[in-house]
Amino acid sequence: MTTPPRTLEPASNFGVIGLAVMGQNLVLNLSDHGFRVAVFNRTAARTDAFAAQHADRSITGFRDLDLFVAAIEQPRRILLMIKAGQPVDDQITDLLPHLAPGDVVIDGGNSLFTDTARRTVELADAGVLFVGAGISGGEEGARYGPSIMPGGDVGAWPIVEDALTAIAATVDGEPCCGWIGPGGSGHYVKMIHNGIEYGDMQIIAEAYDIMGRGLSMSAPEMQPWFERWNDGRLDSYLIEITADILGHTEDDGTPTVDVIVDATGQKGTGKWTVAASMNQSTPVSLIAESVYARIVSALLDERQEAASALGDDIEPLTDSVDQVMADLHDALYAAKIVSYAQGFMLLRSASEEYGWDLDLSMIAGLWRAGCIIRSRFLTEITAAYRKNPSLTNLLLDDYFTHQITQAMPGLRRTVARAARAGIPVPAYSAALSFFDAFRSRRLPANLTQAQRDYFGAHTYERTDAPRGEWFHTNWI
Amino acid sequence: MTTPPRTLEPASNFGVIGLAVMGQNLVLNLSDHGFRVAVFNRTAARTDAFAAQHADRSITGFRDLDLFVAAIEQPRRILLMIKAGQPVDDQITDLLPHLAPGDVVIDGGNSLFTDTARRTVELADAGVLFVGAGISGGEEGARYGPSIMPGGDVGAWPIVEDALTAIAATVDGEPCCGWIGPGGSGHYVKMIHNGIEYGDMQIIAEAYDIMGRGLSMSAPEMQPWFERWNDGRLDSYLIEITADILGHTEDDGTPTVDVIVDATGQKGTGKWTVAASMNQSTPVSLIAESVYARIVSALLDERQEAASALGDDIEPLTDSVDQVMADLHDALYAAKIVSYAQGFMLLRSASEEYGWDLDLSMIAGLWRAGCIIRSRFLTEITAAYRKNPSLTNLLLDDYFTHQITQAMPGLRRTVARAARAGIPVPAYSAALSFFDAFRSRRLPANLTQAQRDYFGAHTYERTDAPRGEWFHTNWI
Repeated sequence: MTTPPRTLEPASNFGVIGLAVMGQNLVLNLSDHGFRVAVFNRTAARTDAFAAQHADRSITGFRDLDLFVAAIEQPRRILLMIKAGQPVDDQITDLLPHLAPGDVVIDGGNSLFTDTARRTVELADAGVLFVGAGISGGEEGARYGPSIMPGGDVGAWPIVEDALTAIAATVDGEPCCGWIGPGGSGHYVKMIHNGIEYGDMQIIAEAYDIMGRGLSMSAPEMQPWFERWNDGRLDSYLIEITADILGHTEDDGTPTVDVIVDATGQKGTGKWTVAASMNQSTPVSLIAESVYARIVSALLDERQEAASALGDDIEPLTDSVDQVMADLHDALYAAKIVSYAQGFMLLRSASEEYGWDLDLSMIAGLWRAGCIIRSRFLTEITAAYRKNPSLTNLLLDDYFTHQITQAMPGLRRTVARAARAGIPVPAYSAALSFFDAFRSRRLPANLTQAQRDYFGAHTYERTDAPRGEWFHTNWI
Repeated sequence: MTTPPRTLEPASNFGVIGLAVMGQNLVLNLSDHGFRVAVFNRTAARTDAFAAQHADRSITGFRDLDLFVAAIEQPRRILLMIKAGQPVDDQITDLLPHLAPGDVVIDGGNSLFTDTARRTVELADAGVLFVGAGISGGEEGARYGPSIMPGGDVGAWPIVEDALTAIAATVDGEPCCGWIGPGGSGHYVKMIHNGIEYGDMQIIAEAYDIMGRGLSMSAPEMQPWFERWNDGRLDSYLIEITADILGHTEDDGTPTVDVIVDATGQKGTGKWTVAASMNQSTPVSLIAESVYARIVSALLDERQEAASALGDDIEPLTDSVDQVMADLHDALYAAKIVSYAQGFMLLRSASEEYGWDLDLSMIAGLWRAGCIIRSRFLTEITAAYRKNPSLTNLLLDDYFTHQITQAMPGLRRTVARAARAGIPVPAYSAALSFFDAFRSRRLPANLTQAQRDYFGAHTYERTDAPRGEWFHTNWI
């Protein structure tokens, strides 16, 4: 074998492995910001095609991993944009022999945070700095400015900060990228982002269902409502694209949304969020119901059978359209506040459990643009945590206390209306139940404790004794 | 060292390690049924005291593990009643050198089913047959007849069947004990039992809350309602003990339940059930809300703060007590049907996922007595699965279709009433939302799919194309 010719100086100052659409768009984004990018893909044909397509840019494709690595200035910055799980470990194994101490490997996929924590330790043992970076914003975000949540080996941050902040979205000149913390914290925060995204999508789906099955509105009739909502407190990317979707028609004029099968897929971050909430004993009930709602939607055949056996009739709504819609706006808004309050409870508990010392105002701040859940609302959350970094719960911030108090009657009426009509509102109901439980000085949990003591001698605490003192009663 | 004297023939035909209250009661139960039991406890003083206290029985205490093992006839049957987790592995490690091939070790604790699967393989490698047996019934059940769910190495079943069925509860002469399946299936089924128990307790707690905060009823005023309900379709152990609890007073006449702190503990099986439901993509939303309800109850200080900021007022109920109570009865019953339907969905999915070939009618059957969730209701579920072993969903059984259709208006009114009043009903709401989603021919999940395609190019299926064919739209 002849040694391929090499340039004396490495031609690139950033490397990207994985040229699916997210990887490609991040390469172009890096290139836009003056980075000279070496690219590598498992299937070499894709590398060749991509490099050829962008021959006018400082993008160099490699068919061999060793040449790819050699082409990057040290300390190297190599971003992996590949499928989460075993492929990431396999790629790291292939890559490691070619790296030098001090090089940085960034995993930009949706990896499980415990995997990221493990890899950070493993690569540190090899002298390589590992970063698990959550990247949100879909294709468009990757291309023109995503929200980036890097965490892992803090020594990597000065090396990658310029590149990651350059390609990130900005809000008032602030980049939507900041160092999250050690270990798996970056991917953890991205996981919660996705869980919240599941919730945001479900509360919109419930509004759409009430408008459709409850008020018999067509997609084009719904569109202006979402457009109007997007001009107010609900202003957000997901409301905006909902309006776009509702306005999109097939060639024959049929709304495209009407011909889409009602079975939702999911990749795993929502389920992980709920599993994490169980480990941490933190109630993200709205996200859990949103994950379950997707699961029930996917039971398509069983649902048809159930509809035949149990009936799928809806009681017509008797209130005026204006009343229903006004309440629905407030239901969406109140449910959203509760969902974010729950999501931030989970972040706060993770910060304590794992010793990450998360900066919640920074996290809210870098979700304000670039990512799927971006919204005006996140500006208000950022403000709440900036005002009081040790805020225990979003619902206890003056602004949000006021907002949710205003919106709550609409949520109450919406849940009651849907319950009578027979329209499922799992996320609105979860929000309402949580709100009412959370504001309860006294819950019926005393009875539950009595039952546990009755059948299992689990003992209980008394209101007339100090906490931590346990009592048992012989109930019969 | 002198060798301690040994009898020529082993004196015992069953061994129990772990003499906490459950272990002690199972020993006495075995003794009642003619078994000669060798007992061992980590703290020898407890062994001595227990053996001395029951000197009139064939119960022999041992301070040394080797002598304990030597005293048991081969193939030995040794039941571990110790804390789940590492202690079980530690005890097995200590025990293994003393065992002979063909001996059986039974873990009767609440072990995580994946641990049980692992141990079954590990002990099989050592020639020892391992059984993970869920045992439910609390102290009383252990003493006089629990429900027992053994699974693991099927070769163990002929060896332990006589003892386990002898000590189990019975229904019409049938023991509440049957071989569940391979690996961790026994502990899995016990985990689901406990998850369902969480749900049963939460739906009772919500009734109690509506009666208390909604109708201003005192505990003694509530008691007759639970007694009456226990004579009807809700007839169950948990309703029965609720009546007992509500009738119990302090020396000064105060209802005991009123002085119990409203913060519920939990040990882990409920959380595991929810985590398993996420792994298996099966919606046990009522159990999830019940676990979260316990978690929220434990946020005692934060709730007081929230009550001050958000108010903890309840709108008085305007309907008659009779109406509210009639609806509440039906809400309890409908929510219970949904919860069991969900629990059995999870069992069915586990059976497929792990290849366990679970007999759902047998499982329902062995929950009819002995265990915490025992009820008349489980006789009806047993009948449904006996009639149709391949029933895909409990809600599609004729009897339950009829029952839930009758009860649903009461659940609807109860959820609507609680929503307006401000009383949290997370479990009732979860039941209602699931029911309404499950019976929907078409859910709003088409919009969710459109959103996913819009921002992530996740593609979607169309109603006018075969399933499995995926489409992408350029939405703008």
